Amino acid sequence: MVNASIITIGDELLIGQVIDTNSAWMAKELNTAGIPVVRRVAVGDVWNEIWKALDEESAHSDIILMTGGLGPTSDDITKELLCKYFDGKMVVDPASLAHVNYLFEEIFKRPITERNLKQAEIPDVCQVIQNKRGSAPGMLFSRKYPDQATPKIYISLPGVPHEMKGMMPAVLDAIRVRFELSHIAHRTLLTAGIGESMLADMIVDFENALPSHIKLAYLPNYRMVRLRLSASASQKEEMEKELDKHFLTLQQLVKDYIVTNTDEPLEAIVGKILLQKNKTLCTAESCTGGYIAQMITSVPGASAYYDGSFVTYSYKAKEDLLNVNKNTIVEKGAVSEEVVREMANGALKNIQSDYVIAVSGIMGPGGGTPDKPVGTVWVAIGKKGRLITQKFSFGFDRERNVISTAINALNMLRKFILADE
Amino acid sequence: MVNASIITIGDELLIGQVIDTNSAWMAKELNTAGIPVVRRVAVGDVWNEIWKALDEESAHSDIILMTGGLGPTSDDITKELLCKYFDGKMVVDPASLAHVNYLFEEIFKRPITERNLKQAEIPDVCQVIQNKRGSAPGMLFSRKYPDQATPKIYISLPGVPHEMKGMMPAVLDAIRVRFELSHIAHRTLLTAGIGESMLADMIVDFENALPSHIKLAYLPNYRMVRLRLSASASQKEEMEKELDKHFLTLQQLVKDYIVTNTDEPLEAIVGKILLQKNKTLCTAESCTGGYIAQMITSVPGASAYYDGSFVTYSYKAKEDLLNVNKNTIVEKGAVSEEVVREMANGALKNIQSDYVIAVSGIMGPGGGTPDKPVGTVWVAIGKKGRLITQKFSFGFDRERNVISTAINALNMLRKFILADE
Repeated sequence: MVNASIITIGDELLIGQVIDTNSAWMAKELNTAGIPVVRRVAVGDVWNEIWKALDEESAHSDIILMTGGLGPTSDDITKELLCKYFDGKMVVDPASLAHVNYLFEEIFKRPITERNLKQAEIPDVCQVIQNKRGSAPGMLFSRKYPDQATPKIYISLPGVPHEMKGMMPAVLDAIRVRFELSHIAHRTLLTAGIGESMLADMIVDFENALPSHIKLAYLPNYRMVRLRLSASASQKEEMEKELDKHFLTLQQLVKDYIVTNTDEPLEAIVGKILLQKNKTLCTAESCTGGYIAQMITSVPGASAYYDGSFVTYSYKAKEDLLNVNKNTIVEKGAVSEEVVREMANGALKNIQSDYVIAVSGIMGPGGGTPDKPVGTVWVAIGKKGRLITQKFSFGFDRERNVISTAINALNMLRKFILADE
Repeated sequence: MVNASIITIGDELLIGQVIDTNSAWMAKELNTAGIPVVRRVAVGDVWNEIWKALDEESAHSDIILMTGGLGPTSDDITKELLCKYFDGKMVVDPASLAHVNYLFEEIFKRPITERNLKQAEIPDVCQVIQNKRGSAPGMLFSRKYPDQATPKIYISLPGVPHEMKGMMPAVLDAIRVRFELSHIAHRTLLTAGIGESMLADMIVDFENALPSHIKLAYLPNYRMVRLRLSASASQKEEMEKELDKHFLTLQQLVKDYIVTNTDEPLEAIVGKILLQKNKTLCTAESCTGGYIAQMITSVPGASAYYDGSFVTYSYKAKEDLLNVNKNTIVEKGAVSEEVVREMANGALKNIQSDYVIAVSGIMGPGGGTPDKPVGTVWVAIGKKGRLITQKFSFGFDRERNVISTAINALNMLRKFILADE
């Protein structure tokens, strides 16, 4: 089966300054196209390290996809190294040169420098993959090894995410003309309200009876567990049918805990339900500081069901924008059942959506007290005349508390809407 | 010099379902402690792949740090594999057993299962690293190779981020007792308003004159470029002094473009300026859907200067919450200079902060028109009686447009406040 390695190049990846989102995105694209990724490697802008990584990944995979190190500055050495690795010499690519000139004159509207022009130079042994969104062209090399029937291919792309993404369709086309690809399929469902071990016990017989070419994985996160069935085969229809059969059985087994039987995130699920019922939502956020709004609006088309959010970070904002009673804050504290109730009612009154989510909590690292430690969160969800509240104790770190609050609040709302009417 | 490799284990990393944030976090911790990370590798939950990765990374590094594959379900095989790799046998660790029992009885309040109890079993050849936040203990193994003076060490941690993070101090302690570490230092500055190539030309002599043990890197992102100087040496004070000297020169060279000379993100810089001037900020967001609020509130202590945000996603919300005139929206469109002006003024009126940011744009993928294509964004920033507006054309993808809008709006505000009074 044709497989791939991803090599990401850049010192910033090894000192933790940048989170590598490119690899995950590329892996998803490759998988969807039927190319399993067996390894992902990150190395610095260091000649020997890149060279060794190329040697090693050549031993693991048929396709080696690289990003990074193609910029115009001297710390970027990928292109020069690839030229040497594949015994080429540098030449100017006229199409790339025209494109660089066009970019600087028409789009960036900045004077072009010698460095920018050098971006149009490429090793004469590569095939160019055009980069419409930037000045560094992509490059495809191939090498035939004695023990291999098909030459392995090596593709180098820029590390700037939207440039790399724009070039991916051409990359996949170039792969498809060279390799016979098998089919990979996944089925995913999301559960809530049950731990990973209990879930595993519940489906142990199902798991043991699975054929060897179908794999089950558990992906726990923020008190929810995602289950994934994966299969790969040369016969697409047959495999999809078999996978569907097992997925149906799995859904039956865990039906009391299913949030969704698709790969979509919770915020998209909630959006779909609202759209279907023709209802609208607003939010009132204190501790999450806009995170819930941002999750909801990350779904294209959210404006059809989402009115907006009051991000009331200060006491003043809670009073001015949501009509929260100053006395309630003083007597009960900003993180209290009473305050989230008043926030929810204030939001519904001022924006008149059908449903509401209101949250207030202590995210940390500071702000905790003995009776309200870091991680204490109150959530109210519901509609005019009927609110449901719940207290959570998440603990630990700030970022996790924000995400946990958002996910649990959205799931409370999901259940409320489904049970409503 | 003592170096490290990071191996992350899990199928979810290779199909793109999960973005690997652990590696970046661990790399930062290791670097700060004086341990350069030379490679990061991700492999699936596959026996041969994990085994080969251990062999390969042993050839690259002195310290091999692993995360993932320690869960209670059958897809997790890391512990069993490490037991075999280091010729051990499984035994129950009494301290871990007591901890698992405590977690389920006191914290999770769920019945404990056979699977959970198995979490307390460990290879008898490892040293346990306690996991206070979860049920899977960490493990430290060491192996002496004939050509090495000091045994290499292998540390396995759970993949759940907050569990891994909680164990890191103990991991670093375990490394420090075994290795003599050198010192690594970085100096970072952020620039705006100048491209990567122009910047490189401006400092080319500086770069060429740098001693070989000091490295300069360019990190462009969202129309800003971060410059980083890095050095490593055994003599800490001397190196820090030398690095400071070069960093000062660098700052002089690019002084007209500096946003900050620290590693802090823009939102923290804006926060510091507000705090220093004892001023407050509110935001009115349409297209960014809470992203700006969430950026600002990701800084601990933001409540001292940030009142909150009106996330007005619908027309109704713009009218009801920000008093935007319906006619303005109809005549000029929701994405227009007039609307962001009205949004800014509405926010200032309703929440009375000192400064305001208001944004409205077309993020895509849908919603574009010939005269307002996807990526068109209007930003207004300022204070009561004086607003500055600017139109941006970002283009490309939704996520990038949201982030570009937020960053450019924050930078506009930063300059406005610094020039104010």
